[in-house]
Amino acid sequence: MAIVLGPNQFGKAEVRLVHVDRSTPVHRLTDLNVSSALRGDFAAAHLTGDNAHILTTDAQKNTVYAFARDGVGEIEEFALRLGRHFTGSFDWITGARVEIEQYGWDRIPVDGAGHDHAFSRAGAERRTTIVTVDGADAHVVSGLAGLVVLKSTGSEFWGFARDRYTTLPETDDRILATDVRAEWDYGTLDVDWTPAWERARATLLEVFATLYSRSLQQTLYAIGEAILAGEPAIKEVRLSLPNNHHLHVDLGRFGVADQREVFHASAEPYGLIEGTIRR
Amino acid sequence: MAIVLGPNQFGKAEVRLVHVDRSTPVHRLTDLNVSSALRGDFAAAHLTGDNAHILTTDAQKNTVYAFARDGVGEIEEFALRLGRHFTGSFDWITGARVEIEQYGWDRIPVDGAGHDHAFSRAGAERRTTIVTVDGADAHVVSGLAGLVVLKSTGSEFWGFARDRYTTLPETDDRILATDVRAEWDYGTLDVDWTPAWERARATLLEVFATLYSRSLQQTLYAIGEAILAGEPAIKEVRLSLPNNHHLHVDLGRFGVADQREVFHASAEPYGLIEGTIRR
Amino acid sequence: MAIVLGPNQFGKAEVRLVHVDRSTPVHRLTDLNVSSALRGDFAAAHLTGDNAHILTTDAQKNTVYAFARDGVGEIEEFALRLGRHFTGSFDWITGARVEIEQYGWDRIPVDGAGHDHAFSRAGAERRTTIVTVDGADAHVVSGLAGLVVLKSTGSEFWGFARDRYTTLPETDDRILATDVRAEWDYGTLDVDWTPAWERARATLLEVFATLYSRSLQQTLYAIGEAILAGEPAIKEVRLSLPNNHHLHVDLGRFGVADQREVFHASAEPYGLIEGTIRR
Amino acid sequence: MAIVLGPNQFGKAEVRLVHVDRSTPVHRLTDLNVSSALRGDFAAAHLTGDNAHILTTDAQKNTVYAFARDGVGEIEEFALRLGRHFTGSFDWITGARVEIEQYGWDRIPVDGAGHDHAFSRAGAERRTTIVTVDGADAHVVSGLAGLVVLKSTGSEFWGFARDRYTTLPETDDRILATDVRAEWDYGTLDVDWTPAWERARATLLEVFATLYSRSLQQTLYAIGEAILAGEPAIKEVRLSLPNNHHLHVDLGRFGVADQREVFHASAEPYGLIEGTIRR
Repeated sequence: MAIVLGPNQFGKAEVRLVHVDRSTPVHRLTDLNVSSALRGDFAAAHLTGDNAHILTTDAQKNTVYAFARDGVGEIEEFALRLGRHFTGSFDWITGARVEIEQYGWDRIPVDGAGHDHAFSRAGAERRTTIVTVDGADAHVVSGLAGLVVLKSTGSEFWGFARDRYTTLPETDDRILATDVRAEWDYGTLDVDWTPAWERARATLLEVFATLYSRSLQQTLYAIGEAILAGEPAIKEVRLSLPNNHHLHVDLGRFGVADQREVFHASAEPYGLIEGTIRR
Repeated sequence: MAIVLGPNQFGKAEVRLVHVDRSTPVHRLTDLNVSSALRGDFAAAHLTGDNAHILTTDAQKNTVYAFARDGVGEIEEFALRLGRHFTGSFDWITGARVEIEQYGWDRIPVDGAGHDHAFSRAGAERRTTIVTVDGADAHVVSGLAGLVVLKSTGSEFWGFARDRYTTLPETDDRILATDVRAEWDYGTLDVDWTPAWERARATLLEVFATLYSRSLQQTLYAIGEAILAGEPAIKEVRLSLPNNHHLHVDLGRFGVADQREVFHASAEPYGLIEGTIRR
Repeated sequence: MAIVLGPNQFGKAEVRLVHVDRSTPVHRLTDLNVSSALRGDFAAAHLTGDNAHILTTDAQKNTVYAFARDGVGEIEEFALRLGRHFTGSFDWITGARVEIEQYGWDRIPVDGAGHDHAFSRAGAERRTTIVTVDGADAHVVSGLAGLVVLKSTGSEFWGFARDRYTTLPETDDRILATDVRAEWDYGTLDVDWTPAWERARATLLEVFATLYSRSLQQTLYAIGEAILAGEPAIKEVRLSLPNNHHLHVDLGRFGVADQREVFHASAEPYGLIEGTIRR
Repeated sequence: MAIVLGPNQFGKAEVRLVHVDRSTPVHRLTDLNVSSALRGDFAAAHLTGDNAHILTTDAQKNTVYAFARDGVGEIEEFALRLGRHFTGSFDWITGARVEIEQYGWDRIPVDGAGHDHAFSRAGAERRTTIVTVDGADAHVVSGLAGLVVLKSTGSEFWGFARDRYTTLPETDDRILATDVRAEWDYGTLDVDWTPAWERARATLLEVFATLYSRSLQQTLYAIGEAILAGEPAIKEVRLSLPNNHHLHVDLGRFGVADQREVFHASAEPYGLIEGTIRR
């Protein structure tokens, strides 16, 4: 059986682009991590080392910077611009994948107002998008990563299956905490990206906060369902929710009356709950 | 359009299992990072919070430890044992994914011989496997991660496409370095796992070392082709090769004659070359 | 010359303690990373393996949890309680060092108000303290880490020394960014810790934002000076400020008019400016 | 009380320098991480923003690369060259601190022999040095970091102090594992650096392997004592040894006879044992 080249792509990963809009004294900061990859006919490079079809990863990086010249705008639009440019640049480049993470910055407060040009980095959360261009088609998946949330009550976990390796006690009151990775997959490009992102994020947080949870699976599904219910343009929600275990420390061992208020936040190993909710 | 649950799974990630075989005074150490995930009918947990079908991630972790009691053996076999156990444990669990990374340890040399029970950790490289069980079927993908390699010559990069954003100079002699992530996908379970792994790894290293490279794409393909040629049981090889750029530092700027021997090892941003080679 | 035991200490590092005050329906969350170390007469353990003087690191961890039973309060007070307890526990334990990092959490907003028991993690910044107890004496150093700040203008860097290896262009307008590690060393324990911390932090941010900076050294000194001027209880400020380089990308190379608005945020290598300001 | 500038320094951190000696077809690779910092009279930069005394961190980086032109040699000598150069460059620069980590690379074996110009990265261990130049004086501390070692028997821990928070069981057979950070402080510059480093490292490993250990403290002291006994040029050894806990998993809970061969390798929280041994 012959040996052949299968799916392949190449690009530049983690281009850290900062754009400062200085058009007014009130600067606006955009801070991105951009990764691009190209798809198409690159067989010669693989088989014979003929690089004539290779648009270098260095040129891809340069393109990211050059396209930021007049501002970045919404990351979905920026990724679409990049993806369509790459796909339109040479006949043999038929597809592109552009992934962007956006870091948040707050204005430093001085005398009760945000400063014009001094900023502090917001939390670890990133707004994300993955844009795939395939010929004339384009496809947008947006979402977020690094959003760490915790409920100190309103979460149970009991009634689960039991086998000989099941030793976990049931609980009707536990800490539920997770580090949300969410992706929402749009069925259209006719979207007002930022308001849609803000609504989806707000829905996610509100469901997490208000749902009385019997499992992380239930929370996951309810979040996906609510995001879909609120935004017709989204066709599928994917969630990956590590269970950031907070283990109750039994203080009774030390001769003090335990009140279930002291926990060990454990990073190892962790439950990982993943699911897709769709129309 | 109704909202429904799509693909989902849950499990315990990064169970750090160390097994010491103490059956003789010459101990044998096995050091693993195991992640499991279960698939099947978990709709009730998601939709109503009824956990009767949930085999807890805690029980999955316990199973990993319990199954190590009589030794781990090859990671492919250990993952198959775990995956088949989970799939066979309850009617509603129809599939499992078990991923294992194995860390290497060397015996500490004392008086010219390896010590019986004292070890030092080998490099960052891990032997890996991903086993997927789907009903009666099982499927093994093995490989490695964290293998960092470098060629100080025997690598060119020129003749690539040029657009207005291409500024990279051509070179007929560069450092080629990468951090190999390789997966080889077996078409059968009738494999002598460890010898097959060792042969694939040796082939990978030998091709990297001896191929005169005109691009990382060419090196990638040649590695995949050679692994496939050497092992009929493998049906596909997947490689993900970051380009660990080593940027020549032009010492001429400082008034000294440059000899192209001094480089800046850059971690940002990096080229990423990914490809599949198959029969 | 005889070989002797010099300074030594041992303890438990990175005890991740979460306390939930559930005394009212509006829960309060305290999230800490606590490291303790003990000093004293531990010669026998080192020289002969006699552990009679060793208060185990496991017991130190347990103590951290047990002491949180009735709430943690301010981290400086919690560290003092722990340090004095350890030092008072056995004759041969004459000193202790307790280091605490506190992570921030915000209430998740629901219907315009913060939720009673649902939280999201604030940024990467941590409030820190290092308490050293030596016999009857105690000493508190507070501060912060992980506060990332950036000025998009109002920063110059020119007029520096030149040798044959100096190639950096002068600039009268650059991005100034850093990841602040600050410690302020108190000369007394008679401090209202939280208000003092908040004032020092606010001063730091305000000076960073408003000072027209000719170097990171100047900014560093001005921050320290302002903190000292504002708080008589502080005797010394120590700052460690990496220069998070934002390198201007010259878009002119791509045939577009450059506006100095596009930057590469580089993580490698970085300037590191460290200094002490004191009375 | 006046506010004044205290100790301060600035430099470039983590300059990643790779040198390839191509003088023969058998290339030699040197891979370093270099951090420099300068001390002296930098008051004007701090107080008034006058940078005339600042030798930029960029120039420090350039110097590291330029000095590598004719080869790096032993890291201690390279750091001494750099430190003395900086200190001798301008009157107001009176001291320098140069820290170097060296990464190891092995030749890739091809046909039973190491390849001329293809290498694979050795483990996470780094050879380290910290050189401090103060006027005409220079001082060298060498060592290693990232050396992970484990004994699967030959380690006890019992007879320790007990208070109300002590719940740790005694054990006469445990896994002892640590991630060694060692520094040895030379009292002279008249040292054959590489053989001395190799002997100290071999001694460290041999003592770890062969000493029957009653505590990590005892192991720490014995290592330091043996290094000092073997090398008169060393005046002090400093060791920082995290206790990489390997927790026995009691399989009896799952109805199988436990053999004490299965362990959970825990990363949180960890004991940390630090000590100095000197003449």
